[in-house]
Amino acid sequence: MSRRVCVIGAGASGLTTIKGCLEEGLEPTCFESSDDIGGLWRFKETPEPGRASIYRSLVVNTSKEMMCFSDFPMPPEYPNYMTHSQLLQYFRLYAQHFDLLRHIIFRTSVQSVRQQPDFSHSGQWEVVTKHRDGREDTHIFDGVLVCSGHFTHPFLPLAQFPGHESFPGRCLHSWEYKDAEAFRGKRVVVIGIGNSGGDIAVEISRAAEKTFLSTREGSWVAARMSSNGLPLDMKVLTRFVAVLPRWLLNWLAHRTLNKRFDHRLYGLQPSDRSMDQRLLINDDLPGRILQGGIVMKPNLTEFKGSGLQFQDGTIEEDIDAVIFCTGYRSNFPFLPQSLWSGPEGELTLYRRVFPPSLECPTLAVIGMFQSKGPIFPGMEMQVRWAARVMAGLNQLPPPEKMLSIIEMERKRNMKRYQCPIQAALKVDWIPYLDSMAKEIGVRPNLAWLLLTEPGLGLRVLFGPCTPYQYRLRGPGQWDGARQAILTQWERVAQPFKTRLVPEPDPDRPWALLSPWLITLGGAAVLLVVVLSQCQLNCSLHDTLQQGFPTFLGMKATCKK
Amino acid sequence: MSRRVCVIGAGASGLTTIKGCLEEGLEPTCFESSDDIGGLWRFKETPEPGRASIYRSLVVNTSKEMMCFSDFPMPPEYPNYMTHSQLLQYFRLYAQHFDLLRHIIFRTSVQSVRQQPDFSHSGQWEVVTKHRDGREDTHIFDGVLVCSGHFTHPFLPLAQFPGHESFPGRCLHSWEYKDAEAFRGKRVVVIGIGNSGGDIAVEISRAAEKTFLSTREGSWVAARMSSNGLPLDMKVLTRFVAVLPRWLLNWLAHRTLNKRFDHRLYGLQPSDRSMDQRLLINDDLPGRILQGGIVMKPNLTEFKGSGLQFQDGTIEEDIDAVIFCTGYRSNFPFLPQSLWSGPEGELTLYRRVFPPSLECPTLAVIGMFQSKGPIFPGMEMQVRWAARVMAGLNQLPPPEKMLSIIEMERKRNMKRYQCPIQAALKVDWIPYLDSMAKEIGVRPNLAWLLLTEPGLGLRVLFGPCTPYQYRLRGPGQWDGARQAILTQWERVAQPFKTRLVPEPDPDRPWALLSPWLITLGGAAVLLVVVLSQCQLNCSLHDTLQQGFPTFLGMKATCKK
Repeated sequence: MSRRVCVIGAGASGLTTIKGCLEEGLEPTCFESSDDIGGLWRFKETPEPGRASIYRSLVVNTSKEMMCFSDFPMPPEYPNYMTHSQLLQYFRLYAQHFDLLRHIIFRTSVQSVRQQPDFSHSGQWEVVTKHRDGREDTHIFDGVLVCSGHFTHPFLPLAQFPGHESFPGRCLHSWEYKDAEAFRGKRVVVIGIGNSGGDIAVEISRAAEKTFLSTREGSWVAARMSSNGLPLDMKVLTRFVAVLPRWLLNWLAHRTLNKRFDHRLYGLQPSDRSMDQRLLINDDLPGRILQGGIVMKPNLTEFKGSGLQFQDGTIEEDIDAVIFCTGYRSNFPFLPQSLWSGPEGELTLYRRVFPPSLECPTLAVIGMFQSKGPIFPGMEMQVRWAARVMAGLNQLPPPEKMLSIIEMERKRNMKRYQCPIQAALKVDWIPYLDSMAKEIGVRPNLAWLLLTEPGLGLRVLFGPCTPYQYRLRGPGQWDGARQAILTQWERVAQPFKTRLVPEPDPDRPWALLSPWLITLGGAAVLLVVVLSQCQLNCSLHDTLQQGFPTFLGMKATCKK
Repeated sequence: MSRRVCVIGAGASGLTTIKGCLEEGLEPTCFESSDDIGGLWRFKETPEPGRASIYRSLVVNTSKEMMCFSDFPMPPEYPNYMTHSQLLQYFRLYAQHFDLLRHIIFRTSVQSVRQQPDFSHSGQWEVVTKHRDGREDTHIFDGVLVCSGHFTHPFLPLAQFPGHESFPGRCLHSWEYKDAEAFRGKRVVVIGIGNSGGDIAVEISRAAEKTFLSTREGSWVAARMSSNGLPLDMKVLTRFVAVLPRWLLNWLAHRTLNKRFDHRLYGLQPSDRSMDQRLLINDDLPGRILQGGIVMKPNLTEFKGSGLQFQDGTIEEDIDAVIFCTGYRSNFPFLPQSLWSGPEGELTLYRRVFPPSLECPTLAVIGMFQSKGPIFPGMEMQVRWAARVMAGLNQLPPPEKMLSIIEMERKRNMKRYQCPIQAALKVDWIPYLDSMAKEIGVRPNLAWLLLTEPGLGLRVLFGPCTPYQYRLRGPGQWDGARQAILTQWERVAQPFKTRLVPEPDPDRPWALLSPWLITLGGAAVLLVVVLSQCQLNCSLHDTLQQGFPTFLGMKATCKK
């Protein structure tokens, strides 16, 4: 007899959850409180309480080849980084292709999820739903998958800042922010330098009279566009990079990021040099700082009338608006309170999916993790694994084992991230996906691939860890996976092919040769130049020793 | 007896011209048709015929240390790249500091400039002006300096495109463009990829439904922000770089620019690989292309109803607006027609300043040049030289010598730039300034500097060629020049100092040491990694020889 499961929410995670459940023979019913799919990614002109809300200009910060679902590559002509509306379009294609809509009941919110009296052996849940027309229904399900997201309840730490009550301007959370129109010609302070904080400060700075960006800790800032103009995530999220030691990765990352701009000079370098905690994806922030459009400020300490005082004692006067980009608190009001059993009252989940305290593994939370990788393939993998656990095809360890693993991970993460909320959410992307993939039996067999099809194997090892890798074999194997990997860079190149650059004129064969000649000649001359520079620097060094001012003054000045 | 000279226009060039004339003992009277200084750089909400017009978001593309006047550094707290309003503020400070305003007669336009009957020995000009109240006046001047700019008359090549008459949308020139508001939600085609075209396409793409950027030739694109976040021009405009051979510079530039993004992949690489012709300064363009906000298109061929057809045969339908960023035609209606004596009817000027055909060198045109360097120090140098020529302190060569030099330069430039208009305007920045500086006697004496004050000498040779270098000695010497050069990087760093990044904790001395240890360790491991990669690549190469698909597919795909 097929097991009936309840999926809560039809956003990105809800859709792939429906599909993942169907794939394992479960029978999903999805309740969606709004009247459309897409969740977070469906832009709404005004924020709606209890729902995620995004700004108009939002562009995803992971690239299309990395973030797609593993058996459904994005259309080749899609740009590499998409707006929310393009992403929503992709979800529609996905839902249509796998015929997911018929499992969704719209305009119906979940009121409560409670264990049945016989839960300890049935594992069943009583789910109470409420239709928008007021009708309440009670359902019994064999499993529940929570896909309602954790960007629904803004965290606004106003109380931390004395004087905020008498601030005459506007205080709002990034959740309320839609576009810069209301801030035209204003003096605005943006608090917090997460991805929203960076995006919003940049956008506002193009309209406002003055934009200040206040951050306690600073942040490393990377651009979506990596070297040669290729998507950053496709260059760094590889299996080869994933096995390098963390200190080496940090070192390489610092070098690369400081090469783009000196984080210390720009007032952005975090006091903690680790890349773990603070990495912001933003293309425009350094440029806006260089142009004076954004002025960096340290942590806000208090409001003083219409002014704001910062940690260094400086006060910025006549501020019209303060936008708190201070994140969200996860909130699942319909779940039993007993699940919030962590030391700081946080939701404790084995592998960020299963509450370890339940007698039966029939409740899973999808998407409750943070990583440097794209979130959708991660959620998809969670579902593939959770669906198999619910279908009885995979087993969880005994509760005490799960608890000890959770505690071990919590301790390890606390060292890296300090904050308990972050520690409960953070995962290392490839190892995390691999851990579930291994249990399902879909982790790519690298040795075998390298042996039997080195072209593919090398791509899997050194190329971007695109989600197709998890469809090469095992349950849910997809025949298109191999081809999808072989052609992934073609889909990256496709959207650019709107203006083809002519090849050098074949009537002038030397034109084809000349880049090589120039390269060789250039390299030779460069060598000479470098050598002579070295000599100059050496004599310069002598000069400096004799007490002359620093050569070009730069290093000394910036590091002051 | 002091010579009275007429300065036409009180924009950036007019202001420095007044000052340069005063410096050489001339007596300037400046006529400005509007009621304020600043010219081009004074933003106006609506364009005014016969005047330059800029868009609201314009940010200069040269940095403050490179573009300031040579004896008046920008205030240290100014951002490195300024908006037009900040630049205007600088001009106000400049005018105030050197007390220039009292030489300006506002609301008075110049109607005609004609040689006096006795011009051949007096060198005098009859200048007819018209006050805004209708009053006409006739003045006699010993010299005329034309500072009215060459961005006043937009060039709109509509006639080149069949079908434009029946296009139902809006066609406009960038001269009319103020901001993206009118294009919100529209489908827009931007024609031309000069600095305006790039800026406007980027800005519109953030508001429009779809933005196409059409270019015949493509362009190399550099960002204002160079490596380590430092201003690009301060890194590349150095005396050391200026003496490197052009092919080497091109080679280095291509490498660097393609490292940022592959110009071929992005549909931007010009068919001519030379950097001379096509260099666009734009921070955001590649990112907007990567995000699909801007779609590159080849040259426009014709209008087809509301659609536009491009050279590759593709048609983009339902276009709402076409913005021609096709530049300007220089126009000085008040000057005698006889000065337009070039082979293509262009204004012929010796050193881009003096018409060679006049018997007396008492008419100079300021600012009629284009280069990769900042324009203001170039104009200032033109004035310093021209004022001395007019004051009789420097001489021009005989007319036939000037004509032959002009012809030689024209021929040389035609090879590099093809277009006769460009050929007449282009100069190499440092050599051009040096040529005039040498005649004046203000070119820095490098050998002497290196010998007597190597710290300064090395900065002059390897550091950015900031304009202060031309105030170290000779006429117009400025006592602050030396100090200005020594502190130029401090003024670059100053505007960033709004959030100071704490130094590593001194309680943990290893924290100070660890970057070095990590660097050394990292370098060692990197070496190992690179070596093993080399080996992998070698075996990979064998693989490829055996007919397996290209490794990672990228190179092959992009170069298709």
